[in-house]
Amino acid sequence: MSRIGSRLDELGIVLPAAFAPAANYVPCSRSGSLLYVSGHGPMGDDGMVVGKVGADLTLEQGVQAARSTALSLLATLLGELGDLDRVTRIVKVFGMVNAAPGFGQMPAVIDGCSDLLVEVFGDAGRHARSAVGLAELPFGIAVEIELIAEID
Amino acid sequence: MSRIGSRLDELGIVLPAAFAPAANYVPCSRSGSLLYVSGHGPMGDDGMVVGKVGADLTLEQGVQAARSTALSLLATLLGELGDLDRVTRIVKVFGMVNAAPGFGQMPAVIDGCSDLLVEVFGDAGRHARSAVGLAELPFGIAVEIELIAEID
Amino acid sequence: MSRIGSRLDELGIVLPAAFAPAANYVPCSRSGSLLYVSGHGPMGDDGMVVGKVGADLTLEQGVQAARSTALSLLATLLGELGDLDRVTRIVKVFGMVNAAPGFGQMPAVIDGCSDLLVEVFGDAGRHARSAVGLAELPFGIAVEIELIAEID
Repeated sequence: MSRIGSRLDELGIVLPAAFAPAANYVPCSRSGSLLYVSGHGPMGDDGMVVGKVGADLTLEQGVQAARSTALSLLATLLGELGDLDRVTRIVKVFGMVNAAPGFGQMPAVIDGCSDLLVEVFGDAGRHARSAVGLAELPFGIAVEIELIAEID
Repeated sequence: MSRIGSRLDELGIVLPAAFAPAANYVPCSRSGSLLYVSGHGPMGDDGMVVGKVGADLTLEQGVQAARSTALSLLATLLGELGDLDRVTRIVKVFGMVNAAPGFGQMPAVIDGCSDLLVEVFGDAGRHARSAVGLAELPFGIAVEIELIAEID
Repeated sequence: MSRIGSRLDELGIVLPAAFAPAANYVPCSRSGSLLYVSGHGPMGDDGMVVGKVGADLTLEQGVQAARSTALSLLATLLGELGDLDRVTRIVKVFGMVNAAPGFGQMPAVIDGCSDLLVEVFGDAGRHARSAVGLAELPFGIAVEIELIAEID
């Protein structure tokens, strides 16, 4: 039985379908013990969550978008590895917020992702991170996050 | 005879001169089997390609700028390795587009780079990727791309 | 006696206190021989240095902010490793400037960091780099820089 699978059940988390890039790149690529995961965006009930945080979306909606993005990242890791127990550490997160002019709470937004990773993986989920404001994200999505995981 | 060298000939691709940083950094740096390549920009017939994609430049011009940037990245890899056959995998691409306000087709722009990498390296050219919109790029260049390659 | 410690003394550099993240992430994380250092910002005499370079801040103030950020990055490396002699190479720097519209001298700004790394580590401080302009940085800081170091 998967330890992290049980943990997801315990938290009531159901992962979305894994993201399938439409072009000449892949959801993640491995080199040695590192897995590089492509930039992912947030899915809501009505498709991708779009808009500028601090204008079209509130801080709290931004946090939820970052949490939703983390679930997509986990879905990709699960699709690649078959079992999330194979993740030994989340090494690095790069969190990009579609920020309204003057909005400066990118760290609070990306906490939505970081908190989920620690809920799921415990201390192994603590990562180095940058959380910054981008001018434009693909299709106007609210948040885009990429990460590097260490695997066994 | 270099396999990738022949492939470049077959595609009719002539690489530009390798990029020489003017400051205290290097075009690429190696650690173990990974080669980190610095951010590169696009060269056109009249020097650097500048302007905001979606305003000063069309999508198609952005795609061409990303392709041109990929050629510069290859030139740096060749300069470092002596033979592109030593690249075992393109691991990760970070594609940054100088995006006009409201422009959201950064993935289509960066496909200009991703497609070239797959034309040249085949499946080994498929990489994890983020493609995002930056507020400003150095000297107003249209695209900046950095990558991580795995080498033998 | 630490070689790099002596070098810092020689340069008259006193490192600031190491940065302590307030959330579910860490100042740096290690995987194999690589240390990923989280995005750091610049501390001035009156707290964080904020503002857009090219508007609120001059180029020279931006350079000083990047240098100050480099000192914070070194403080985190020292806190993690106990001795900066354990750094065998600065592999990669990602420099993000809070850029005023139309400002394009991000490389000159981030030279403030790159130059300091080479002053301190010599040739081992030369790194791959991107230096780009972000729309918004956390709390309006002028510069944010993350890096990857190779350690013994």
